Amino acid sequence: MRIVTLLSDFGLQDHYVAAMKGVMLGIHPDLNIIDISHMIAPHDIMSAAFILGQAFPSFPPGTVHVAVVDPGVGTSRKALVASAARHYFVAPDNGILSYVAQSREDFIAHEITADHYFRKPVSSTFHGRDIFAPVAAYVARDIDLTKFGPVEQKPKLLPIPALQRVKDSLIQGAVLAVDRFGNVITNLRAEDLPVYEIENARPCKVLAGQREISSFRRTFAEGRPGEIFVVPGSSGYLEIVSREGSAAEELKLKPGAMIGVVLL
Amino acid sequence: MRIVTLLSDFGLQDHYVAAMKGVMLGIHPDLNIIDISHMIAPHDIMSAAFILGQAFPSFPPGTVHVAVVDPGVGTSRKALVASAARHYFVAPDNGILSYVAQSREDFIAHEITADHYFRKPVSSTFHGRDIFAPVAAYVARDIDLTKFGPVEQKPKLLPIPALQRVKDSLIQGAVLAVDRFGNVITNLRAEDLPVYEIENARPCKVLAGQREISSFRRTFAEGRPGEIFVVPGSSGYLEIVSREGSAAEELKLKPGAMIGVVLL
Amino acid sequence: MRIVTLLSDFGLQDHYVAAMKGVMLGIHPDLNIIDISHMIAPHDIMSAAFILGQAFPSFPPGTVHVAVVDPGVGTSRKALVASAARHYFVAPDNGILSYVAQSREDFIAHEITADHYFRKPVSSTFHGRDIFAPVAAYVARDIDLTKFGPVEQKPKLLPIPALQRVKDSLIQGAVLAVDRFGNVITNLRAEDLPVYEIENARPCKVLAGQREISSFRRTFAEGRPGEIFVVPGSSGYLEIVSREGSAAEELKLKPGAMIGVVLL
Repeated sequence: MRIVTLLSDFGLQDHYVAAMKGVMLGIHPDLNIIDISHMIAPHDIMSAAFILGQAFPSFPPGTVHVAVVDPGVGTSRKALVASAARHYFVAPDNGILSYVAQSREDFIAHEITADHYFRKPVSSTFHGRDIFAPVAAYVARDIDLTKFGPVEQKPKLLPIPALQRVKDSLIQGAVLAVDRFGNVITNLRAEDLPVYEIENARPCKVLAGQREISSFRRTFAEGRPGEIFVVPGSSGYLEIVSREGSAAEELKLKPGAMIGVVLL
Repeated sequence: MRIVTLLSDFGLQDHYVAAMKGVMLGIHPDLNIIDISHMIAPHDIMSAAFILGQAFPSFPPGTVHVAVVDPGVGTSRKALVASAARHYFVAPDNGILSYVAQSREDFIAHEITADHYFRKPVSSTFHGRDIFAPVAAYVARDIDLTKFGPVEQKPKLLPIPALQRVKDSLIQGAVLAVDRFGNVITNLRAEDLPVYEIENARPCKVLAGQREISSFRRTFAEGRPGEIFVVPGSSGYLEIVSREGSAAEELKLKPGAMIGVVLL
Repeated sequence: MRIVTLLSDFGLQDHYVAAMKGVMLGIHPDLNIIDISHMIAPHDIMSAAFILGQAFPSFPPGTVHVAVVDPGVGTSRKALVASAARHYFVAPDNGILSYVAQSREDFIAHEITADHYFRKPVSSTFHGRDIFAPVAAYVARDIDLTKFGPVEQKPKLLPIPALQRVKDSLIQGAVLAVDRFGNVITNLRAEDLPVYEIENARPCKVLAGQREISSFRRTFAEGRPGEIFVVPGSSGYLEIVSREGSAAEELKLKPGAMIGVVLL
């Protein structure tokens, strides 16, 4: 069976996700369709891009990933089919592939122009069902990406927050995501903080949401009850967390918020 | 693999949906089970009927659709297995198949009486697990529908709101559903409004929730920020929408609410 | 295809569940992965244990059940692979298998020590992806449980509330769970209440949340609108329910709350 993943902001109450799955199974009956998430906030392309970038490397090569957060549906925004690291991606050209593209040098995108692969008639409001789902099923049937359309030289990419070393003792970073547990995923990595790299390292503080955090742990369980602390997360990024509560709520942090690191 | 879809009001926190899937896989190990939705409001048969009517045509012929919103479980309400357009349906006889039955002339239902297909003992509170799931798995094993029981001549059908042309210049319609985005799905179709059919058509207004709407667009993106407008939706119905907000909230519209069209 | 079920407190917004599925499919491409629930309240091991105990018997023998509610991730808490009734279980050693272990005499657990089955590097915060998912996929590939590590003689078991016959006329019980519908699942069984067993039985009352309940029904539909009553539930336990509302809300009952039965 071929694996297809689905990511969207469609929620779980309506028939939209099922409609996409039905269309795919009509074209390729042996798909193992795995949901990544459909709980992306409506139109939140950046969060979807992050989740996709986190999820896809866990799947085996050959997986087809369909990502539909598509506020521009029905406009002239392009549709893309892409590949990177032997994974395939089908999505609107609105930046939802930004993390994938950034992380893999072999990322290549094609504009989808071959409308004989579409479900007809193509609605103006649901390209998930009419364009992305059928194209994904044909990709899973090993149709070569070149058949869907020409190489897209400039796929839209959203700016992913980068670390800035403001001065020798100050790094400026950002919040990439907040998860269900209220863990705040930053764009810092353990190697950015001497405290995680060197014994007897220069101490530091993380500035986040009007607070100074100076507890650096290696596991959740090392945190004291009620304490806000930093821990290396499962994605390779440092996370600001609380063992029992929501660090995001306590610090009032959302994706995009700025944080700082002061090296003392 | 054979496809089975599941639709219910069981929610996602409990073991009920998994119990149904486990029972089905015990009878037919090669099922590709696809969730339509389990977030139907408890006991909301009409919404489930709409979602099922929307979702099933996207699946390939031969799919078995199990729909369990069942406030009458344990009473004398019948259980049905049905077919239409080469799809199969397993559900309580409470109107949940109304949209399916209305849309297909070849709809035929059988009362399920052959209790040797049931999981034993049959509980009085969970026919999803004990009756509908096992029957669906046997349908997927190509047991003929006649084996489950006699033809049901009068399956229960709920009244689906129909358009009424009150006078030449006034059409009365209704809200069929509200989706995650707050889009209001009406029972109007583009062909009911001259503005979508003829150039320089007679203008019109939609009356909904104390408001007059006179913006008729073809895509979401044509709408202006903040504007409430009408757009042909992906289901073939006209929808009242807002690009960034929830039209349903703004207009305080729920399924069943009446709307009007005034042809000027 | 081999069936694997998944139960967690990961929620549905993040990539965590998908990451586990991807890892499993990379090791065993022909898995039919079925979600039990991911909506367990964060760190609520007891509720997860109940849901798992309810769900697993509906699946066919040979199913591998992965249950990850893991507040002790990264600490010295052990990881377990277990079997009971020809089902397999992969989980942290924190009591999440309590209901499974209690219900089956042939329950046997092994500590997972063979780290060549792990995804590398093993993070300190996401053993679901790095330990439990790969081990489950290898179990599904029929690796013998003895290969994962030695028998665990004392797996951690949480105290499951037992009935206490305080005196001849008084039984003390507890609330095991509350479901989506607000049904209160108790640890009483129909055979504990004469009213369900014998005609003209000695009457009784259930004391719950400051209320006396003396309506004992066999089906939901027998309850009168607005009435709080007792009904034998689909799990073999008696439930305190209301036809249209939430009995749990009305009685302010949560899992763990005590209830009583007075035999008059």
